Amino acid sequence: MNDVLRPSPWQVVHSERIVADRWIDLRADTCIDAQGRTISPYYVLEPADWVTVLALDENDRAIALEEYRHGAGVVGLGLVGGAVDEGEDPRDAALRELREETGCMAAEIIDLGSTWANWGNQTNRSHHFLARGCRRVADQSLDDTEMIVVRTEDLEDLGARLEQSYHLLTWLKAMNHLRAERAS
Amino acid sequence: MNDVLRPSPWQVVHSERIVADRWIDLRADTCIDAQGRTISPYYVLEPADWVTVLALDENDRAIALEEYRHGAGVVGLGLVGGAVDEGEDPRDAALRELREETGCMAAEIIDLGSTWANWGNQTNRSHHFLARGCRRVADQSLDDTEMIVVRTEDLEDLGARLEQSYHLLTWLKAMNHLRAERAS
Repeated sequence: MNDVLRPSPWQVVHSERIVADRWIDLRADTCIDAQGRTISPYYVLEPADWVTVLALDENDRAIALEEYRHGAGVVGLGLVGGAVDEGEDPRDAALRELREETGCMAAEIIDLGSTWANWGNQTNRSHHFLARGCRRVADQSLDDTEMIVVRTEDLEDLGARLEQSYHLLTWLKAMNHLRAERAS
Repeated sequence: MNDVLRPSPWQVVHSERIVADRWIDLRADTCIDAQGRTISPYYVLEPADWVTVLALDENDRAIALEEYRHGAGVVGLGLVGGAVDEGEDPRDAALRELREETGCMAAEIIDLGSTWANWGNQTNRSHHFLARGCRRVADQSLDDTEMIVVRTEDLEDLGARLEQSYHLLTWLKAMNHLRAERAS
């Protein structure tokens, strides 16, 4: 079977908007695959792209955030991150989130690449950055309901303490980048 | 401010089910934070936990899947993975998905740890596994609308070709595991 049929895109014959507001966009598609089979409903979330930033201060200590995460229901240690605004460059979004969440400016920002956030059911990509030489230039500029405590942590130790998939992915990518840099 | 107030869980004062079916569970919470501020609506998805498996065959080649991913709208190369069934152990889910998607049985399955899938807005965790010594013992056992082509790829090269966050995270974790094993 594998020798004959190749996976190919489905045709969307109907699409219904289930929820659409500032915080979430969810649609339900009715699709037909290459074999003529109907797939319905197939739910797709349409979030903005995301950025995650491993930020290092001028002493190469990692800048981490302690914050309440309501999906998991836990207060946890994470990285700088957020959504890319409409029309915004992901790199600018990374620097903006860094400034808003920590009050820091980076001397250097390195693009570690991007991945689909969750390609089966989401349309958005996740962009990963390493920010270096960060220093505090302003106060935090948080949304009304944000409450973020900024901590500096040992970069190596932080890896074992990161608990969120995109944060750990960014940390691992950054460590590989730094290792390759040292080796070259 | 950071010295006085600590992030703490919100109190959920109302919760509404927006969508609930076999494929998605979405709720909208009305929350109150420790400062008495109201956060509403706050959307939370409640997927099952997920597993992702980097599978190696008896020659240590990676077993990868070519499949259409409708969220992203692309045919892409990925790893074995899926949802954990109700009451199922994540390790058993990993072996089940391996069997269903590739027809393979593993000689060894290694738990690489788990992370929150996306702790701001999702309740579920993502579990990462390395399966070794995999060999074909059966045909694929796919859902009606699944169309998956199984490929074997060079393990090192695969890292540069993985395009989905959880897949790349699992690959990076597995590579670190194998590197540590070689060094010990």
